[in-house]
Amino acid sequence: MIKEAIYHRPKNNFAYAYNETTLHIRLQTKKNDIESVNLIYGDPYIWEENAWVSEKKEMSKTGSDQLYDYWLAEVSPEFRRLRYGFLLASGEEKLVYNEKGFFDEEPKDSGFYFCFPYLNKADVFKAPAWVKDTIWYQIFPERFANGNPLNDPKGTLPWGSAEPSTTNFFGGDFEGVIENIDHLVELGITGIYFTPIFKAHSNHKYDTIDYMEIDPQFGTKETFKKLVEVCHEHGIKIMLDAVFNHSGYYWEPFQDVLKNGINSKYKDWFHIWDFPVQTEPKPNYDAFAFVSSMPKLNTEHPDVKNYLLEVGRYWVKEFDIDGWRLDVANEVDHQFWREFRQAVKSEKEDVYILGEIWHDSMPWLQGDQFDAVMNYPFTTATLDYLAKDKTTAEDFANSISKVMHSYPDNVNEVAFNLLGSHDTPRILTICGEDKNKLKLLFLFQLSFVGAPCIYYGDEISLTGEQDPGCRKCMEWDKEKQDVDMFEFVKKLTTLRKAFPVFGNHGQLRFIEANNETNHLIYEKHSGEETILFIINNSKEELVVTLPDYTKGKVLTDLWNDSEFAANADTLQAKLPPFGFQILKY
Amino acid sequence: MIKEAIYHRPKNNFAYAYNETTLHIRLQTKKNDIESVNLIYGDPYIWEENAWVSEKKEMSKTGSDQLYDYWLAEVSPEFRRLRYGFLLASGEEKLVYNEKGFFDEEPKDSGFYFCFPYLNKADVFKAPAWVKDTIWYQIFPERFANGNPLNDPKGTLPWGSAEPSTTNFFGGDFEGVIENIDHLVELGITGIYFTPIFKAHSNHKYDTIDYMEIDPQFGTKETFKKLVEVCHEHGIKIMLDAVFNHSGYYWEPFQDVLKNGINSKYKDWFHIWDFPVQTEPKPNYDAFAFVSSMPKLNTEHPDVKNYLLEVGRYWVKEFDIDGWRLDVANEVDHQFWREFRQAVKSEKEDVYILGEIWHDSMPWLQGDQFDAVMNYPFTTATLDYLAKDKTTAEDFANSISKVMHSYPDNVNEVAFNLLGSHDTPRILTICGEDKNKLKLLFLFQLSFVGAPCIYYGDEISLTGEQDPGCRKCMEWDKEKQDVDMFEFVKKLTTLRKAFPVFGNHGQLRFIEANNETNHLIYEKHSGEETILFIINNSKEELVVTLPDYTKGKVLTDLWNDSEFAANADTLQAKLPPFGFQILKY
Repeated sequence: MIKEAIYHRPKNNFAYAYNETTLHIRLQTKKNDIESVNLIYGDPYIWEENAWVSEKKEMSKTGSDQLYDYWLAEVSPEFRRLRYGFLLASGEEKLVYNEKGFFDEEPKDSGFYFCFPYLNKADVFKAPAWVKDTIWYQIFPERFANGNPLNDPKGTLPWGSAEPSTTNFFGGDFEGVIENIDHLVELGITGIYFTPIFKAHSNHKYDTIDYMEIDPQFGTKETFKKLVEVCHEHGIKIMLDAVFNHSGYYWEPFQDVLKNGINSKYKDWFHIWDFPVQTEPKPNYDAFAFVSSMPKLNTEHPDVKNYLLEVGRYWVKEFDIDGWRLDVANEVDHQFWREFRQAVKSEKEDVYILGEIWHDSMPWLQGDQFDAVMNYPFTTATLDYLAKDKTTAEDFANSISKVMHSYPDNVNEVAFNLLGSHDTPRILTICGEDKNKLKLLFLFQLSFVGAPCIYYGDEISLTGEQDPGCRKCMEWDKEKQDVDMFEFVKKLTTLRKAFPVFGNHGQLRFIEANNETNHLIYEKHSGEETILFIINNSKEELVVTLPDYTKGKVLTDLWNDSEFAANADTLQAKLPPFGFQILKY
Repeated sequence: MIKEAIYHRPKNNFAYAYNETTLHIRLQTKKNDIESVNLIYGDPYIWEENAWVSEKKEMSKTGSDQLYDYWLAEVSPEFRRLRYGFLLASGEEKLVYNEKGFFDEEPKDSGFYFCFPYLNKADVFKAPAWVKDTIWYQIFPERFANGNPLNDPKGTLPWGSAEPSTTNFFGGDFEGVIENIDHLVELGITGIYFTPIFKAHSNHKYDTIDYMEIDPQFGTKETFKKLVEVCHEHGIKIMLDAVFNHSGYYWEPFQDVLKNGINSKYKDWFHIWDFPVQTEPKPNYDAFAFVSSMPKLNTEHPDVKNYLLEVGRYWVKEFDIDGWRLDVANEVDHQFWREFRQAVKSEKEDVYILGEIWHDSMPWLQGDQFDAVMNYPFTTATLDYLAKDKTTAEDFANSISKVMHSYPDNVNEVAFNLLGSHDTPRILTICGEDKNKLKLLFLFQLSFVGAPCIYYGDEISLTGEQDPGCRKCMEWDKEKQDVDMFEFVKKLTTLRKAFPVFGNHGQLRFIEANNETNHLIYEKHSGEETILFIINNSKEELVVTLPDYTKGKVLTDLWNDSEFAANADTLQAKLPPFGFQILKY
């Protein structure tokens, strides 16, 4: 056994409270190195004859990535305390691993073992329950629908009359969303994530001028209130975008600093290196990247903090929004986010807090800061395999397993799983406009663990390169919409809702990742229910043998709502090029 | 290269802000597997010709444990942001390691690399500066000195007239401490940690009756105020013991629950499983271990929280204490400790917060909760090697290196390094009463990184088994005190203060850990200054060859304050059995 590959450290994703009674204990070992792992565990304070009283429980292998296997055991300690270690076996070899290292025999002193000191409710990671069943839809409000030409900004172009540029406007607004609510309801989405709606300069509105005002091109506070009401009536949650890392150039406090320099009462609201302030050729203050029009906010300053926390509370309290998506979230201090969580959750307990973080995000997902992050590792792995053909089936299974084992299960269940956004090329474009590939993308996204998000227009096959190309006007001419794609996505959302195990209430496990044929089999499983997903990511027709354990089972073809096949010696599924099967038993 | 042994994950002890401008980046690799590691790093937003602009810096090997080598690089990123990866080399083999895995060539996209998003001041781990230079002394107040017989509890025994038991009293009090302040000043200690002083039932006072009152056997609030003043005048800080995990049986709210059951207004202040409350044969409520007289407090209840936070603030505000030691700290919820930190630090910014945690404590040491924990892994490793002869020199160096690499350097610098306490047998007793071994213990403790703590009486060679044996009355009869030991410890505290590099202002590195001779060489180093420590942990006289790099240097024998030796071809040091050398250049 390769000791050096064995990893466990309490808390984070290796030992965590899954809920108020259950702990998850995970272990990492070198891939294919260990045959079985037993958890050795018990209450630290139960002793008999000078020996700690422990039990054993076999751990299950929940997945593997390129280098490691991952093992899991669930325990519900009666007194909410746990000491534990691991008994590893491979052939004749046995090894005990605990906090003090490796041993041939189990030490009798509980002090040698790993410690999960107490399962305190306050520390359980707790995201809003509704997120587990939410299917998001991202709207870039300037480009979704123009419902009211009266609020169009000067120079607004006729809807869809030009390619999107970094500076043009097409007049999208809240009334446009309200008018088209049926499109969203029919598609089956249950949450809208709006990119910024506050008063700002650009068409993307990430350069805030006033955090307390709606941008007039989108409507008024009344229109927004109505939008929220209409959405709520239709079972749709609303999430807004908070740009708290930096302000826009025209935000009053920054204008004041530009004007009054060192005498400005706002001079400490930013990170200004020296006075006078200069924006050219380079800013002499901290900025987002090196963009002088996006000065970084000093979120450690009490006044800035109070102001932004009030913004956070205000839109929840006054408009009953359901979530905050936090832009450039990892560049703001952790302490600010801890206070932000307290502030907004005190207004409404089940507000969803979603951070934009592209990298490993464990430090923000310990229960005291965010409920979720935008799951870009999922995005990259999925696009690389299904859209770009850059990776093999095995690579894909490894990458997805790695993502899932990087976080606790209850964190994964509320992850924000996007395939594209206003920041990336349209997924159909990435697929080389191959609609079958796009369908496989949607299939994997909507059967994966977490909360999927559809970027407006992807469901009707909009195309577009890297922004501004991916920010085209939504197509409302039914003739020009890809109705087939819409129906496809609608069917997926329907299945996800109809079968809990299809969505967030099933455990995902890869059964086969075949590099030769480039097909994948994975299952979603919970209790007595299992759904098998077979994906043929190749241009060849394929006959795939189903796993042995399906023998003798009656399988339902969920997609065609029919019985799949009679019981046979070997169950096989035939898949057209880039085809799939969804089989339930 | 063994990829599976390579570990890095941002934040915690692998990537952290050492101060407001400097990041420490660490890497773990299999022991003796890698010859060199270079950090690849740069600002994420500096790009030229579609390639991220990165620099390289050689990492230094800072230590090894049984399985791994540890590498470190310091960087001070100009714009406080960092992307980074590692270039590993072994012979002809080269490998790039970053967030996305292993590569033969350096990826050009900064998105592949690990991310330290922003060095925000608010998130820098910040313990009080004074702790780095503090030498603690632990007082168990019932047994240190009886200065005022008038406050003795009923049945108090004459000082030292009997062996300590779990129930007897000898009348130790605050006036006793004040009277003997010269002993402490002469010894050179600069902080006192008092086990609980609040009104309680037992002689150890961990079963609180009233958190807002001084136990009358120790004196009054006025006496305590005077004690703090006298200590402060002598440059001695005061740390009190907060028992917030559980109350005592006679605490009024618990008594109220016992009396009024489900009708008590305090019924939710504890974790009571059902009513009526029973204490026998086993409590039907959460307790410390299964001790019915120590009911666990519901620190998630707002009223309990407010009460305990007020306790935390009160003794800081009214009595100007300098630290809180938190009993059974890991069984209380993290959220409580976050609020506790905010509360007490808002009264006095440089209060030291020390948690009692026996296990790996990283989750409490991220800057938002504790400043330090009681460093039991240090205790165990040091006693196992120097006192108990249970381990080899190599085992010892491995264990100590492991402790040091389990936490950030700025965390290590304020760790509370104890060798014994009221909870463990006296260290001289563990040494089999071998005073030479005791001296080596003190030498290592006082030359180690962190804040050492001397348990009252160890400095005059008190003995005693596991408590209650280790809680003997302090010996004040000069004839019976071990003056030689006192002078020895005094000399160590003097050296530690005289030479910053001796104490917390030097980096520790093991030079040799020799299993055959059982000797150790380690250095403390900073800038131009180095002190070499040689410890002979054997009963043989030993001639030890000094490291090559001492050749041609003029070495001072710090212990004897003399020149060590003329420059010779090979520098050798002669050490008596259980002897040592302290050589500076």
